[in-house]
Amino acid sequence: MALVDILGYSAGAITSLTFLPQVIKTWKEKSARDISLLMFVIAAINEVIWIAYGALLDNWVIILTNAIVLSMSSVMIYFKLSYR
Amino acid sequence: MALVDILGYSAGAITSLTFLPQVIKTWKEKSARDISLLMFVIAAINEVIWIAYGALLDNWVIILTNAIVLSMSSVMIYFKLSYR
Repeated sequence: MALVDILGYSAGAITSLTFLPQVIKTWKEKSARDISLLMFVIAAINEVIWIAYGALLDNWVIILTNAIVLSMSSVMIYFKLSYR
Repeated sequence: MALVDILGYSAGAITSLTFLPQVIKTWKEKSARDISLLMFVIAAINEVIWIAYGALLDNWVIILTNAIVLSMSSVMIYFKLSYR
C-alpha cells in the first residue's frame, strides 16, 4: 500500500473516533454546560451531507466513517439537551 | 457543477467551520471544564495527517480545510489548558 493510501485510511479511521473521548467524558460526568450545542448540530448536518456524497460516489469508507461520527454527534446533542 | 461536486464542496466548507461555535462559546465564557482535551488532541493529530495526505495528492481543498480545523483545534487545546 502506498504512503498516500496509508495516510488516507489512518486519517479516516481517526476521524471516526474524534468525538468518542467527548462522548465518554460527558456520559461519565453528566455535565455538558461548556459544550456548544451548535457545534454538534453543524457536525450532524454535515455528516448527513458527507453520507449523501459517499452514497453518490458509492464510497463505503466515506459512508461508514461519517455514519459513526453522525451517531456520536447525535449522542452529544442528546447529552447536551439532557444535562445542560 | 454536478450534485456530487456541490455536496462535496458544501461538506468540506461546513467541516472547516464545525469547531467555530465551540471556540466562540469557550472564548466568551472562559470555561472549558466539560470539554474533552483528548478529543481536540486527537483532532489536531488527525488534521496533521489529513494535511500530509492533501499535500501528497496536491489537493488544496483538503489542505486548506484541515489547516483551518487544525488552527481551531489548537485554540481549543490552549483554552482547555488555560481555563480548565
